[in-house]
Amino acid sequence: MKLSDIAQKLGCEMRGMDVEITSVSGIDEADKGDITFVSNRKYISRIKTTKASAIILGKDIPPIDIPSLRTDDPYFAFARALEIFFEPLQPETGIHPTAVIGEGVILGNGVNIGSYAVIGRNCRIGDNTTIYPNTVLYPDVVVGRDCVFHSFVTVREGCRMGDRVILQNGVVIGGDGFGFATVDGVNHKIPQIGRVEIGDDVEIGAHTTVDRAAVDVTKIGKGTKIDNFVMIAHNVQIGENCIIVAHSGIAGSTKIGNNVTIGAQVGIVGHIKIGNNVTVSSQSGVSRDLRDGEVVGGNPITELKQSIKIRATMRKLPEMYKDIIKIKEKLEIKE
Amino acid sequence: MKLSDIAQKLGCEMRGMDVEITSVSGIDEADKGDITFVSNRKYISRIKTTKASAIILGKDIPPIDIPSLRTDDPYFAFARALEIFFEPLQPETGIHPTAVIGEGVILGNGVNIGSYAVIGRNCRIGDNTTIYPNTVLYPDVVVGRDCVFHSFVTVREGCRMGDRVILQNGVVIGGDGFGFATVDGVNHKIPQIGRVEIGDDVEIGAHTTVDRAAVDVTKIGKGTKIDNFVMIAHNVQIGENCIIVAHSGIAGSTKIGNNVTIGAQVGIVGHIKIGNNVTVSSQSGVSRDLRDGEVVGGNPITELKQSIKIRATMRKLPEMYKDIIKIKEKLEIKE
Amino acid sequence: MKLSDIAQKLGCEMRGMDVEITSVSGIDEADKGDITFVSNRKYISRIKTTKASAIILGKDIPPIDIPSLRTDDPYFAFARALEIFFEPLQPETGIHPTAVIGEGVILGNGVNIGSYAVIGRNCRIGDNTTIYPNTVLYPDVVVGRDCVFHSFVTVREGCRMGDRVILQNGVVIGGDGFGFATVDGVNHKIPQIGRVEIGDDVEIGAHTTVDRAAVDVTKIGKGTKIDNFVMIAHNVQIGENCIIVAHSGIAGSTKIGNNVTIGAQVGIVGHIKIGNNVTVSSQSGVSRDLRDGEVVGGNPITELKQSIKIRATMRKLPEMYKDIIKIKEKLEIKE
Repeated sequence: MKLSDIAQKLGCEMRGMDVEITSVSGIDEADKGDITFVSNRKYISRIKTTKASAIILGKDIPPIDIPSLRTDDPYFAFARALEIFFEPLQPETGIHPTAVIGEGVILGNGVNIGSYAVIGRNCRIGDNTTIYPNTVLYPDVVVGRDCVFHSFVTVREGCRMGDRVILQNGVVIGGDGFGFATVDGVNHKIPQIGRVEIGDDVEIGAHTTVDRAAVDVTKIGKGTKIDNFVMIAHNVQIGENCIIVAHSGIAGSTKIGNNVTIGAQVGIVGHIKIGNNVTVSSQSGVSRDLRDGEVVGGNPITELKQSIKIRATMRKLPEMYKDIIKIKEKLEIKE
Repeated sequence: MKLSDIAQKLGCEMRGMDVEITSVSGIDEADKGDITFVSNRKYISRIKTTKASAIILGKDIPPIDIPSLRTDDPYFAFARALEIFFEPLQPETGIHPTAVIGEGVILGNGVNIGSYAVIGRNCRIGDNTTIYPNTVLYPDVVVGRDCVFHSFVTVREGCRMGDRVILQNGVVIGGDGFGFATVDGVNHKIPQIGRVEIGDDVEIGAHTTVDRAAVDVTKIGKGTKIDNFVMIAHNVQIGENCIIVAHSGIAGSTKIGNNVTIGAQVGIVGHIKIGNNVTVSSQSGVSRDLRDGEVVGGNPITELKQSIKIRATMRKLPEMYKDIIKIKEKLEIKE
Repeated sequence: MKLSDIAQKLGCEMRGMDVEITSVSGIDEADKGDITFVSNRKYISRIKTTKASAIILGKDIPPIDIPSLRTDDPYFAFARALEIFFEPLQPETGIHPTAVIGEGVILGNGVNIGSYAVIGRNCRIGDNTTIYPNTVLYPDVVVGRDCVFHSFVTVREGCRMGDRVILQNGVVIGGDGFGFATVDGVNHKIPQIGRVEIGDDVEIGAHTTVDRAAVDVTKIGKGTKIDNFVMIAHNVQIGENCIIVAHSGIAGSTKIGNNVTIGAQVGIVGHIKIGNNVTVSSQSGVSRDLRDGEVVGGNPITELKQSIKIRATMRKLPEMYKDIIKIKEKLEIKE
C-alpha cells in the first residue's frame, strides 16, 4: 500500500517520498517496507537508527530524513494502521456441538460458542458475541452484542454485561465477595447475593476478578479498561473511561469517578470516594477520599510532586540521622 | 414477613413499629419494604436519609425514627437476614453425563458434578459436595462433605480437603512450589512431592494459589478465610480462623498461628513464625517473627501506632531535610 | 537403599554409618529411615533434634553425630535424592477421545492430551509433550518436546514455546497487552498483533500471565523460572536463567538481562533496561535502568545495603522530627 493511501485513511499529513508500505512494526524491530511510530519522546533518538520505511510522528517533531505521517496523536494513528494491515483472530463460527446450552437460553444472531463452553439456564447473549472454548456462564447471565469472552472466563449467576465487552482469559466476574462476620473468633460467611454490572466497551485483562456485591451491585462504567490481576471487591463502583493497571486492588464499597487513572500495584481502601479525573501513581496506598482532578502518589499519598520529593529525601535519611546526632552533641541536647 | 418474626429468628430486640419486610438491601440502595443494617460507624449519618423500612443496629446506638432490630453484632445479624430472604444458587444436580470420572473414584451420596469436570483416578468425594462445570481434580484427591468447588478450580494430585470447604473460581490447590537449586548459573527444579491439606470450613477466593509442599505438607487450618489472588507458598502452615486479604503473599515454610488477620498486599518472608491473634495491616512487609497478639504495620514493620506516626512524619521529610541544612549552616557544621 | 549407594548416585562424600534409607523428608518432619538436608544456616541447630537417619550437608559444617552426605550444594543434592525416591505424577497417556484437535494440527510421538483439551488449527506439538485436561491452545501455536502444560493453561494464537517448558495451572501466554490510546477522554484499543516466545527449560507458576506483544514479540529466555501471579507486559524481553518471584510485575517494553533475580511484589516500570546478574529485593519499585551486577532494594531503589539502612532509619523518623523541633527552638530558628 502506498504511504499516501495510509495517510488518507488515517487523516495524517504525509511528508517525504510516497513509499510502498507492506507491514507495521516497532521502531527497533522495523525493516524495509515497515511503517513504525514514535509517541514516547524517549524513543525520538531511535529515528536515526530505525530501518523502517516510514514513521508516524507528532506534528511538533522537527523534519526527519525518512518519510513520515504527521498527526496530533501518533499512538492512535499507529493503532489504526495496525487495523489496516492485520486481521484479528477469527474464532470458529457457530455453536460447537459440545457446547452445553442450558434451558431457556436465548442466543442472538451470529453468536459463536466454542467447544466445552457451558452456558447456564436462562442466559441471554446478544448478536455477534463470541465465546471461546472452555468458558462458563452461570445461570441468568445477560451479555450484550459484539462481546468477546476468551477461554476460561467465568461469569457468575445473574451478572450483566454491556455491548462490545472484551474479557481476556481467566477473568472472573461475580465471584463471591470477601465478607465474614467474626463472632467469638469464628468467621461466618455473609451471603453474597448481589451481582456485577459491566458497561459497554469495557475491556478486562487476564485473570482479573470483579466480585459480586454482598447486596445490590458492583459496577464498572462504560469504556473503562482494566489490566491483569486487578481485584475489584464487592460493591465497588467504577465510573466511565477509567484505566486501572495490573495488580491493583480496590476494597469494598469504594466509589470511583470517571476518567480516573490508577497505576500498577496500588491499594485503595474500602468505603471511600474518589472523584473524576484523578490520577494515582503506581505502588501507592490510598486511604482517604480524593477530590476531582487530584494527582497523587506515595504511601501515605500526597500530591504527586510532593511524593516524588519525599522519595528523593528518603535516600538521605541515614545521613540526616547522623547529622541530628552531631547537632545534638554540639548543642549538648540530651534525651 | 413481619419485623417481629425476623427479630425472633435473629434473636434481636425490636424497637418501633412491627412493619412488613420483603427484602434486604444496602443502606444507600434500600427502598420501602427493605431491611438494612449499620455496623460501620461511618454510615450512622445515613440512617437519616435511607428509605429502608427497618435497620439492624448496635444496641449502643441512640434511638432512631424508623423501626430497628438491636443486637451486639449487626453485621452477623444482617448475614442471617440475607439467608432468610435469599436462596443460594442451586447447582445442576447429579453427575453430568460429560463429567469424566476416573477409575477407582468413590463418590458420596448427593454429590453433584458439572459438565466437563474431570475427576482423576482414585479420588474420594464426600456427601453432598458440589463440583461446578470445567473443574479438574487430579488423581488421589480427597474431598470432604458439603464442599462447593466452582468452575475452573484445580486440585492437584494427592491433596486433601475437609468438610464445607468453598473454593471460588480459578483456585489452584497444590501447584508445584517454586523451588530451584542454582548451580553454575543454571536453575534446577526441586521436585515438589509433598501435598496440601485444607481444614474444615475454609473458604478461598478466586484465583488464589496454595502451592504443594516440596516434601511433607502445606496446611491451612479450619475456619480460615482467604481472599482473591493470595499466594501461599510451599510448606507454609496457617492456623485456624485466620483472615487473609487479597494480593498478599506468604513465602515458603512460614508458620502462622490462629486468629491472625493479614491485610491486603502484604508480603511475609519465608521461614518465620507468626503467633496467634496477630494483625498485620495492608501493604506491610513482614521479615521477622511476630509474637502472640502483636499488631503491626509498615515496611519495615513496627507496632501499628508507631507505623502510622512514621507514615505521618514521612510527609514532613523534605521540610526536615531543609531544616537540617539550615541548622548546620547556623552551627557551621561541615561535611 | 544404602546411604553409600545414595552417596554414589549424588556424588557426595559419606560420613558416619552406612544406614538404610527408605524416604526423604524435611528436617522437622523427618522420621527414622528418612534422609533430610540443611542448606539454610538458620536450620543448623535443628540437626540436634531431627529424627532423620541421615542428613545432606555442606562440606564446611563441623562433624555431627548422625550419618551425613557432604557436598558443596546440599539443596541440589537433596533435589536429586527426591528424584531417586519419588516418581513424578504419571499423566493419562495418549490422546483422550474428547480432546478437540483442530485442522492441520501436527502431533509428535508420545504426545499426551487430556480430556476436554482444545488444540486450535495448525498447532504443532513436539514429542512426549503432555497437555493436561481442560487446557486450550489457540490456533498456530508451536510447542516443543517434553513440555508439560497443566490444566487451565491458555496459549494464545501464534505463540511459540521451546522444549521442556513447564506451565503450572492457569498460566496465560499471549493474552492481549494493555494498550489504549486515549483521545478526548475515550480509550481506544491498540490491536495487539505480536506474539510470545518462550525459551527451552522455562517454568512458569500458576496463573502467571505473559502478554502478547503489540507488534513483534514478548520474549522469555531459556532456563528462566517464574513464580505465581507474575505479570509480564507486552514487548518485555527477559534473558536466560532469571528468577522472578510471586506478584511481581514488569511493565511494557522493559528489557532484562541474564541471571537476574527479582524478589516478590516488585514493580518495574516500562521502557527501561536491566543488565545481567542484577538482584532486586522484594517489594521494591524500579524506575530506572540498572547496570550489570547491581544489587538493589527499596522504593525508591538504592544499593541494597543503603536501602536496609534507610528502612532502619525510618523507624526513628518521629523521634528525629521531635529532635529537629527541639533544636530549632534552642537555636531560635523560625519558619
